[in-house]
Amino acid sequence: MSKSIEVKAADNIRILAASMVEKAKSGHPGGAMGGADFVHILYSEFLNYDPSDMNWANRDRFFLDPGHMSPMLYSVLALGGFYSMEDLANFRQWGSVTPGHPEVDVARGVENTSGPLGQGHVMAVGAAIAERFLVARFGEWMAHKTYAFISDGGVQEEISQGAGRIAGFLGLNNLIMFYDSNDIQLSTETDAVSLEDTAKKYEAWNWKVITIEGNDVGQIRTALKEANAETERPTLIIGKTIMGKGALTADGSNFERKCATHGMPLGEAGASFEKTIANLGGNPENPFVIFDDVKELYEKRKAELIKAAAAKKAAQGEWAAANPELAAKLVKFFAKEAPAFDFSKVEQKANTATRAASSTVLAAFADEIENMIVSSADLSNSDKTDGFLKKTTAFTKGDFSGSFFQAGVSELTMAAIMNGMALHGGVIPVCGTFFVFSDYMKPALRLSALMELPVKFVWTHDAFRVGEDGPTHQPVEQEAQIRLMEKLKNHKGHNSTLVLRPADANEATVAWKMALENTSTPSALILSRQNIKNLPVEGDAYQAALQAEKGAYVVIKPEGTPDVVLLASGSEVATLVAGAELLSERDGLKVQVVSVPSEGVFRAQTKDYQDSVLPLGIPRFGMTAGLPVTLEGLVGENGKVWGLESFGFSAPYTVLDNKLGFNGENVYKQVKQMLA
Amino acid sequence: MSKSIEVKAADNIRILAASMVEKAKSGHPGGAMGGADFVHILYSEFLNYDPSDMNWANRDRFFLDPGHMSPMLYSVLALGGFYSMEDLANFRQWGSVTPGHPEVDVARGVENTSGPLGQGHVMAVGAAIAERFLVARFGEWMAHKTYAFISDGGVQEEISQGAGRIAGFLGLNNLIMFYDSNDIQLSTETDAVSLEDTAKKYEAWNWKVITIEGNDVGQIRTALKEANAETERPTLIIGKTIMGKGALTADGSNFERKCATHGMPLGEAGASFEKTIANLGGNPENPFVIFDDVKELYEKRKAELIKAAAAKKAAQGEWAAANPELAAKLVKFFAKEAPAFDFSKVEQKANTATRAASSTVLAAFADEIENMIVSSADLSNSDKTDGFLKKTTAFTKGDFSGSFFQAGVSELTMAAIMNGMALHGGVIPVCGTFFVFSDYMKPALRLSALMELPVKFVWTHDAFRVGEDGPTHQPVEQEAQIRLMEKLKNHKGHNSTLVLRPADANEATVAWKMALENTSTPSALILSRQNIKNLPVEGDAYQAALQAEKGAYVVIKPEGTPDVVLLASGSEVATLVAGAELLSERDGLKVQVVSVPSEGVFRAQTKDYQDSVLPLGIPRFGMTAGLPVTLEGLVGENGKVWGLESFGFSAPYTVLDNKLGFNGENVYKQVKQMLA
Repeated sequence: MSKSIEVKAADNIRILAASMVEKAKSGHPGGAMGGADFVHILYSEFLNYDPSDMNWANRDRFFLDPGHMSPMLYSVLALGGFYSMEDLANFRQWGSVTPGHPEVDVARGVENTSGPLGQGHVMAVGAAIAERFLVARFGEWMAHKTYAFISDGGVQEEISQGAGRIAGFLGLNNLIMFYDSNDIQLSTETDAVSLEDTAKKYEAWNWKVITIEGNDVGQIRTALKEANAETERPTLIIGKTIMGKGALTADGSNFERKCATHGMPLGEAGASFEKTIANLGGNPENPFVIFDDVKELYEKRKAELIKAAAAKKAAQGEWAAANPELAAKLVKFFAKEAPAFDFSKVEQKANTATRAASSTVLAAFADEIENMIVSSADLSNSDKTDGFLKKTTAFTKGDFSGSFFQAGVSELTMAAIMNGMALHGGVIPVCGTFFVFSDYMKPALRLSALMELPVKFVWTHDAFRVGEDGPTHQPVEQEAQIRLMEKLKNHKGHNSTLVLRPADANEATVAWKMALENTSTPSALILSRQNIKNLPVEGDAYQAALQAEKGAYVVIKPEGTPDVVLLASGSEVATLVAGAELLSERDGLKVQVVSVPSEGVFRAQTKDYQDSVLPLGIPRFGMTAGLPVTLEGLVGENGKVWGLESFGFSAPYTVLDNKLGFNGENVYKQVKQMLA
Repeated sequence: MSKSIEVKAADNIRILAASMVEKAKSGHPGGAMGGADFVHILYSEFLNYDPSDMNWANRDRFFLDPGHMSPMLYSVLALGGFYSMEDLANFRQWGSVTPGHPEVDVARGVENTSGPLGQGHVMAVGAAIAERFLVARFGEWMAHKTYAFISDGGVQEEISQGAGRIAGFLGLNNLIMFYDSNDIQLSTETDAVSLEDTAKKYEAWNWKVITIEGNDVGQIRTALKEANAETERPTLIIGKTIMGKGALTADGSNFERKCATHGMPLGEAGASFEKTIANLGGNPENPFVIFDDVKELYEKRKAELIKAAAAKKAAQGEWAAANPELAAKLVKFFAKEAPAFDFSKVEQKANTATRAASSTVLAAFADEIENMIVSSADLSNSDKTDGFLKKTTAFTKGDFSGSFFQAGVSELTMAAIMNGMALHGGVIPVCGTFFVFSDYMKPALRLSALMELPVKFVWTHDAFRVGEDGPTHQPVEQEAQIRLMEKLKNHKGHNSTLVLRPADANEATVAWKMALENTSTPSALILSRQNIKNLPVEGDAYQAALQAEKGAYVVIKPEGTPDVVLLASGSEVATLVAGAELLSERDGLKVQVVSVPSEGVFRAQTKDYQDSVLPLGIPRFGMTAGLPVTLEGLVGENGKVWGLESFGFSAPYTVLDNKLGFNGENVYKQVKQMLA
């Protein structure tokens, strides 16, 4: 029986994927070989995009979850002309465009960075939400599908529960996920760790589930058609696939369905690379080849896609001509620049918590920034994202006219969904929860930073001053932890994350300004639960707070050379101000007080500026409600940091302030001791 | 109709819980009032423990997941006599035994610290596994049940998926979970974020599911009986409860099922505290009272429990007399001391990866430490926990004769399960995965550290030297991040976590010695993927490596005063040794090389010792494959750190070593520049 062109194309992907891994001497061939049939049918018959304009906003998206299956993705994109055979041969090498796990590269068709299992398909949920949000504002003409590809590992990862619940709850009929179910994972067969009925689980979440033979191109096609026709629910296509499909040993016996082919070259795993390639119709001596008829098929598809996209763009042009205001808004939504917003007009109540100040800013955003989506993990009335919510409505199934996303109690899922929204484009994602739960979100923040996505993280209840909720809810090491992401550079050489802990309500306004204007990395706002006395300023408080844009600045400047410099971020600055008053009143000391909302931004200022804020040779005293190390880099060896060295305690925060030495009297005492 | 004693007891719990929150002026009354009926029936009719010996190893365990429902737990335990009315009145106050979220306190009946939703019930899964493990070795006579209590938030948390899958997979018929399903969460009603069919989801995981009216004591009793009789599966009892049950407003109208009662005192939420207490049969003026007949009921139960426990203990005594060897082993399992183990006999291959060295140690443990349970999140053949696995078998349904736990791809769940095993006692839990995934586990490590549990975390693939897998798999900021847990002190004043990054195979043996002997906090081992050249030592390599027990020590000591001190941890020490050779050969420099597996342990040594390792006034050069800040505290302002400031790259690690300057030549160059 002669091979169908579909099977030949899938075999071509299998040959390329196996060869990439074999040549790199590392990587994951088995899964890629099993998923080849699905991606071939998807790319050659279903996925709508514009090969001549890969950034086209209305393209279908394809999110790969198991990043280790990159050889499959690179190979199908190579059939489409986006990678050369040389690119594939350079898989996993220094400077190549084919790193071991895919890194977002829209021009070549890679929509997301993946690797840590589970996050990839959650980004697809985020993209699908963004699409529904935009369609609700501009019309169904711009609708597109979002496809996700998930593996056994992704289904097992905790995060897939959040995605499953949310996509079902929101009835994301624009989301189609293929589950490459090959019953084999890295170290065991899947039935050694799970006997779940995955179809039933997703049905419990309100998904349409279709189960097929995942290497049967006919069944794949039928399932994709059915999924595309679904109008109420997201679709999960469970494809039972064969890991290492086509693999043979040296003596020609079958070597499919082996754990060993998960994560090493076929030869190393016990198969014969040569026999396998020959079995799949390739030339083991020269495997990096696209078969002529496969090339022809993809070229034909390419022409069709360009034509179809051109037709859609023409329709868009007509729509734009008929709807000039909406069209201008759409352009603005997708612009890379931050939206214009006059922060000087934000009126902050004096002496309020920075979470409340953030709420005020968010309420103002709700009036003007129409493409902002704000989310909370069931804490909107505590993290004060409800300032925004009060002016809009939350998403529900079929209704994306509002701009708030209730994520439920699933912090990591929320963060990964934000990443997906940002990847989709057209929207500005913001999410809030308690700062201590930044622990849960770190894996998604890391990917956000790696992908350089302008997601805004709002973290409130920022210190032991949470009070009665006690040590499980009191961040101590978290500020130092998140500031590691400020120290870590991205591949452009920038601080990979902008981390801001404002000292009062006005600084909170400025922190939001910095976060909104930062379109090249994630931003984090670390905010207080409790009220904070405003910093003493002369003149306009907002103008004074604008100095925060330099990362650190002088809040109180004494006449002449200071005797001591006090520095902190967040609510500890106000405590230092109280201490400075005592030092000045009682002992006539000249005290400079410095607020440092972002050490990372401050380090990027000129040396002259840095020296003016922290003059050399003057003793420094730092105060932090976190670990002392949070400030030690700024205070230096000849200064002293008053911090919290242990887990917190359950008690009213004013009691804790006094028990733990976070008041003006203790600042006075500690500074006097230091200077003595 | 007169109130039944069951309802009266539940109302008593409601009164106490609401009063605690009202008096503290903060807290969560609504959920506690809804769950009161269940905990009353559980504690008064089902939970087996010994009120005269709360640490009794064979007691049933009760794990609370929603820690904010602590008023319910404290109140039912107060009925049992474990808290005084004064304790309840001091809820959430400094120094009280009733912190806002429960902190493990077995003597008073609090089995786990909770607060971050989801983790509590996963600890129950860990305890249930530990019980099955012990029963497999000592007999069904010591079997007991493990109960968990979960809320809407816990069901939504991603981690509950891992627990659901694993408990079902292992057929934990000893696990009974009550889901307090009150349809209301912190900021919305539950149907604003979820429409999942929770029963169906748990059935998909192979749980028995019983749905009842959760405030109907008869239905609760029947469900608990049925769950206790179940022999194949864990049981989920979905109790539809009424948030804020009994709450009234000032005009006497119903104030049940209100979001507002989730997280604030009734009075503040819009109810009337006085009317509510009166409605429940209490005296608003003096609500901290246990009704006489309720007291009588609990005293009667107490006597029954003591008698039943005594009978079981007598049976245990007979068993022990008949099985003296097993009995001695059981005592050893539950001893607080580390098991004796002769590490000097562990033979390490020279120049091997520290993950391989760890595997060698684990294989030796498998022969001798019979109560160790080793786990991996689907990476046993990469993280090399398979050294242990090869000598045993993995748990499966009905077979806990082996000692390995395949957790599947769910790192956070695995870590929380380890915490539960440690809380149960009798076993030594160890878990492995890639170091970059420590990001996922941090929330559970934090609770492990707060609860002072001796869990061992094995994290391999510790740096960019992971190589081809690229930036998503290469830890950079993770060492500095985890070492924050070394800096953070627990409430005993100790480093809350022991963090060890050994420099070669022999140090890996010593690191395992330190981890095994550390029974008071979690321990973390950070291990290399790639081979590392052994450190140069004279005499016995293990004896030399024992110096690592001081946290840092001199590996190469020059004659006389050194010109420079080079320091690092992990595989960078061998790179420094290579650099030191060049500095010495080419320039005759006197170079001291220091290995620092644990800065935290080193800081606890005498000043004299610290000064001998890092002599004052001698320039220091540090090298770290992580962020420079990882070593900056040790190197100080007058030294220099060569680190990695950005995300990693996909390429063979030897290529990366050279591109990123991690070789002897660059050490030579950088040190020369520093000294110039």
